[in-house]
This record gives sequence, structure tokens and C-alpha cells, in this order.
Amino acid sequence: MAGNVYDFKERVVLPHQKVSDWQAAIYRCVGLDAQDARVLAENLVTADLRGVYSHGIQRTPNYVRQFVERELEAKAKPGVIKREGAVAVVDGNNASGIVVATFAAKLAVEIAREFGTSAVSVTRGAHLGACAGYVEIATTADMIGFCWSNGGCNLMAPHGGGERQLGSNPFAIGAPCFSKPAMVLDMATSVVARGKIAVAAMTGVDIPEGWALDADGNPTTDSKYAMAGALLPFGGYKGSGLALMNSVITAILIDSRFGRSMPDLRDPLGEPQGVAHLFQAINIAEFTDVESFKKRMDKVVEYIQGGRKADGFEEIMVPGEPEARARARQLKEGIAYPMEVITRNNDVAVKYGVAKIVDF
Amino acid sequence: MAGNVYDFKERVVLPHQKVSDWQAAIYRCVGLDAQDARVLAENLVTADLRGVYSHGIQRTPNYVRQFVERELEAKAKPGVIKREGAVAVVDGNNASGIVVATFAAKLAVEIAREFGTSAVSVTRGAHLGACAGYVEIATTADMIGFCWSNGGCNLMAPHGGGERQLGSNPFAIGAPCFSKPAMVLDMATSVVARGKIAVAAMTGVDIPEGWALDADGNPTTDSKYAMAGALLPFGGYKGSGLALMNSVITAILIDSRFGRSMPDLRDPLGEPQGVAHLFQAINIAEFTDVESFKKRMDKVVEYIQGGRKADGFEEIMVPGEPEARARARQLKEGIAYPMEVITRNNDVAVKYGVAKIVDF
Repeated sequence: MAGNVYDFKERVVLPHQKVSDWQAAIYRCVGLDAQDARVLAENLVTADLRGVYSHGIQRTPNYVRQFVERELEAKAKPGVIKREGAVAVVDGNNASGIVVATFAAKLAVEIAREFGTSAVSVTRGAHLGACAGYVEIATTADMIGFCWSNGGCNLMAPHGGGERQLGSNPFAIGAPCFSKPAMVLDMATSVVARGKIAVAAMTGVDIPEGWALDADGNPTTDSKYAMAGALLPFGGYKGSGLALMNSVITAILIDSRFGRSMPDLRDPLGEPQGVAHLFQAINIAEFTDVESFKKRMDKVVEYIQGGRKADGFEEIMVPGEPEARARARQLKEGIAYPMEVITRNNDVAVKYGVAKIVDF
Repeated sequence: MAGNVYDFKERVVLPHQKVSDWQAAIYRCVGLDAQDARVLAENLVTADLRGVYSHGIQRTPNYVRQFVERELEAKAKPGVIKREGAVAVVDGNNASGIVVATFAAKLAVEIAREFGTSAVSVTRGAHLGACAGYVEIATTADMIGFCWSNGGCNLMAPHGGGERQLGSNPFAIGAPCFSKPAMVLDMATSVVARGKIAVAAMTGVDIPEGWALDADGNPTTDSKYAMAGALLPFGGYKGSGLALMNSVITAILIDSRFGRSMPDLRDPLGEPQGVAHLFQAINIAEFTDVESFKKRMDKVVEYIQGGRKADGFEEIMVPGEPEARARARQLKEGIAYPMEVITRNNDVAVKYGVAKIVDF
């Protein structure tokens, strides 16, 4: 549900497979092996397919910089520090956050297959992109998936606070349907992603009240002031509390960075980010007949969609529905990329010896 | 964090132990055995100690009615339908929702002690009171606890919807501290509890915009119209999505009542409620040194409290802090009950052969 960082008019439409191959080639050129490069490329392109451009290949220039500057280790592989019963602890070893999270989410599914449920903690991880993809590893395996992340940057004020003390702490919960796309709730605990405010600041547009505070801790509608200030949590004290509990079950559980000690992943860090995550899976088959569950899920979707609409709404959507629609459309028609995303990626590609995907 | 249903001025202060003994005696008289009567009494008095009067002994007149009318079975005991690996399914057998949930939360802790984590699903449960108490069963055992509940009444519109389609679907997440009270987030996914609107309607007061819709699906500030309409989810589409996922991992997972098929527990049902819950526990010792974790938690509390305050806030509180303060105070000074709660309980007590706790 994260916003589109580039809200520009010009678009270039590209087939997803072509973009994925191109991205994998770029990541190969900065040192990742074929398998990890493919995991990264697929993850980013999936976010783009879903219309969540903020977590797609627009991240590549920064990820590439991180590999080159050794903030992330291109050759590193996540390892299992501990696996006992239904829990495991994964050491990200400062590999790509997406590679690490994919590994941990798959391990959560593997463990839940054996024990019915699981909790897999990640230490020394990094920015994991969109959370949705990890719970889809569970839903594809007929499980309910949970992904919690400490976010990794100190961006948000707690309810009642006037300065940054928390990450935007995203999480996702997902469950499979029968003939419909999996229901996937993927959200930051801030009212909006910082990317939305960044776009407003770039284009000189004001933001609505309630999104952010300025550097002095006062409410602001000036997007430039907001960029220097703090995001606000969604839903007042409730969203704020959820954000904090997210940090507790990720960063505090495994003694990782938290709050002010978290760096900003958009600045050169000169050191590993050390982001913490927690993945949980619940094997549906241990509780009910899987096919019946998925058919019940289809009915839930129809039930919610079929409710009376509020004024100003033409339809009611279930979690993940806008993204699933975008994916279905863009799988067929190609991904409509903001031009800026492609030109920036073209520059990075050429710099590391890969051809532009398209020349303008 | 649920609101106080009785917001009346007159108060009567009673020592918690005396109230607990009295409540247990009442529940004994409608057929519960000594152990279950004590579980129920302690649960309700704990909510009152925490200042969450909406989930305390003000529920007793209705619970008693439910036992007498056999909507709840006073003699029934929850049973384990299935226990395998790290998961279990509990059949509430239409016993007291609080007795059932206490049983299931303890089982979740027992399983997590063996496997590191757990997921315990409850079918044929009933209204479980406040969720906080169940995650405190985990925090007291040095675990992180999760409690999810389908709520049991159809009260809330989804985001974009104009009629009741969901429960207020509460949940709680908690983790222990070292020298401070456990951090416990306990919240409904509606903006406010229906109890708050009920009080406003009783006293003829308007409610703020954004709390509820009227029976035609239009926004209303008239508390009487709101009572006939639908609660709104907190935090727009984010809170709405969380509410729906809560139903998915509880009611849909074990094929329980959901949405419009849920009865209203304040009306005589003439049949069991059939509420579904899910309890999860994570054994901290499997991930980190427990004492170090709890000391880190203390530091998290101090860190959040020590942040710059927003305008209009004298302090920043962590989840569960207002309730923990009320508990500490009321354990010492007694529970300041709204008079109305005591007179209604007195009536019930006398009706079933127990003396009034205090005569006016």
C-alpha cells in the first residue's frame, strides 16, 4: 500500500520479464551470484507489478551503491545461527536485505510445515523492500504469513511525541484465497510513506495536516519542513502502539538497532544497517481443510465487496486488492514505469557495464 | 484501552480482593465450580484495576444471564480437540469465554515452552473480556504474547463501507519488562468502543465526527443515530484491513461465525455465541537472554518517555502505561467503581443468594 515515490506523468511501459532479466544482470555486475541476483530482481519487479513503485526498481541505484560501498555484502549469504523446535534465528551477515528476508520467510514456511507454526527472527538484516512478498511465500504454501520489520530508519514520532523516535515499522499479514488473489495487508505504521512527502517536497506541493511534524515538533503542511521533521503514526495512539510493539518483537527481541541508533538508509552509512525482522507462518492444514478455508476466503472477499458503500466510494476493497489488480493488468500489458525510474536505472546499468533497457 | 462505559460521577471505592471474592461467590451460585468462578472473578477485577471498567464486573449481569439462560454452559470445560507440534485447537464447549480464553492462553505458553512458539486456535468460544489479561499470561512466563479475537458482534463498517460488516475485532500484543510493568498493547480496531457511544446516547451527548455512521450509512455525530448504525475502523483503510485480517486468522481459520452471522452479545441470543480467537506465544529465552531482554525493554520505555513532547502533551506513554498506573494505584487504594456498576451487581448478587457487597 506504500505510495508511489515518482508521481510524474511520463511513463514507459516495459514487459516484466525483460525488466527482471535486466535487473538481475545489473546485480550480477556488482557481485551477486545468479541466484541472489534473481531473487532481488524478482522481488523488486513484483513490487512494481503491484504498483508499489516505491519498493521496486527505483531502489536499485541505492542498493547498487550499498553493494559497491560494502554497506551490503554482495557475496554474503544469510546463515542459520539457531534452529530448534518451531523457532530459528537467521544472521543476515549483511547480505542484501531482500535475499536475507526471502531466506528467512522460506525457513518460516519450512518450519511451520513441520511444527504447524513458526517464528523466525532476523539479525543483521537490511531494508527488505515490500513486506507483501514475504507473506506471499507463506500464502503460496497454503499458510498464513506474518512479516514484521523494524524498518531500519528513525523517521516517526510516537503519539504525543515531537521528534523522530521510531521507524515507520511496516508489517504484513496474508492468507490465501481459492480463485481470488491472496488477501495481503501490507502497511507502514506511519500515516503515509516518507516517499510521498519527498515527492511533494520535490514538486513544491503542500501536504495534508496530520501527516508530519516539522523539525521543532510542530504540525506542518509544508512538505519541505516535514522532510526535516517526523512522520506521524496512523490512527493516533493505536497505530503508535502497534509501531512500538513491532520494534519490540523484532529489534528488541534480538538486540538490534532501535530508534535513534538506526541510520538513514538513504544516506551513505559507511556501516551495515543491522535491521531486524520477524517472520511467522501458520500452516492452515493443521487447523482446517485447506480447500475449504480458501473457499471461505473467497466468500469473505465477496461479502466485504458486496456491502453497502459509504458516500464517495464506488467499491469496497479488501487488503491487497488494488495491488492485485495492478499486478494482473501489468503482467499482461507490461509495467508502466515512471520515466525517471528508468533513466536513473539506465545510468546505473551503463555504469556497471549493462546496456540500457531502452534508449530515449 | 477500551473506554469506561459508565462515565458517571458517583464512585464507590472497594478493595480488589473483596470484589474478587464477591464475584466468585456470585458465579458459584449460577453453577460454576470454584476454580472457574475464581478465573472469571480475577479476570474481571483485573480489568477494573486497570481502569478498563467496560470489561470488568459491569459485564457480570449479562454473563450471569447468559449462564442462567444456557447461552453459556456454567459446568462446561474447554477441551483440546487437537494438539500437534506447536499448534493446538481448543473447543470452548460454550463455557465462559474468559475461562476458555484463559485455558487457551495457558496452553499457548505451555506449547511455546516446548517448541519456542505456538499458535492455539479457539472454536466455540465466547466474549473473552479484555485481551490484555491473556497476553499477560505470556509476559508473566517471560514470553511475548499475542491475542487475536473476532470480537463476536457485528458492529463495524469496513473502510469504504456504509453498514456493519465486521466485529470491532480486538487484539493485544505484550512483552515483559524488568523493573517496569509489562508493555501491553490492547485495542479494538474501531476508533472507539461502542460502550463510549452508548454512554453518550444515554446522556444525550453528541459524539465527534469519524466515530460512527448512522443506519443509512451516513457519517453522524448524533450518538443515538450512531447506536443504530456502524462503528468506524481506526486509521482508515489500515485499521480496517487489520480488523479484517484479525477475522481471517480467527473466525475464518477455524470456520466460525463471521460478519453478519455474528449475534449481538448484549441481546439475548438463545444460542451459543461461537466466538473464535487465536493465541500465540514466543518464548524469549529461545532468542536472547531473558534478563537482558527485559532490561532492554525498560530502556525502551525510558527512551520513549524521554522524547520531546508534542504540543498539548505533558508526557508520552507506552502501550499499557495508563492501565498499569491505574492498577498500581487501585491495588493500594481500592478500585473506584462507578456506583451504577455496583448497584447493578448488587441486584444480581441478591437475586442469586449472595449478599450485597455494600449497602447504600
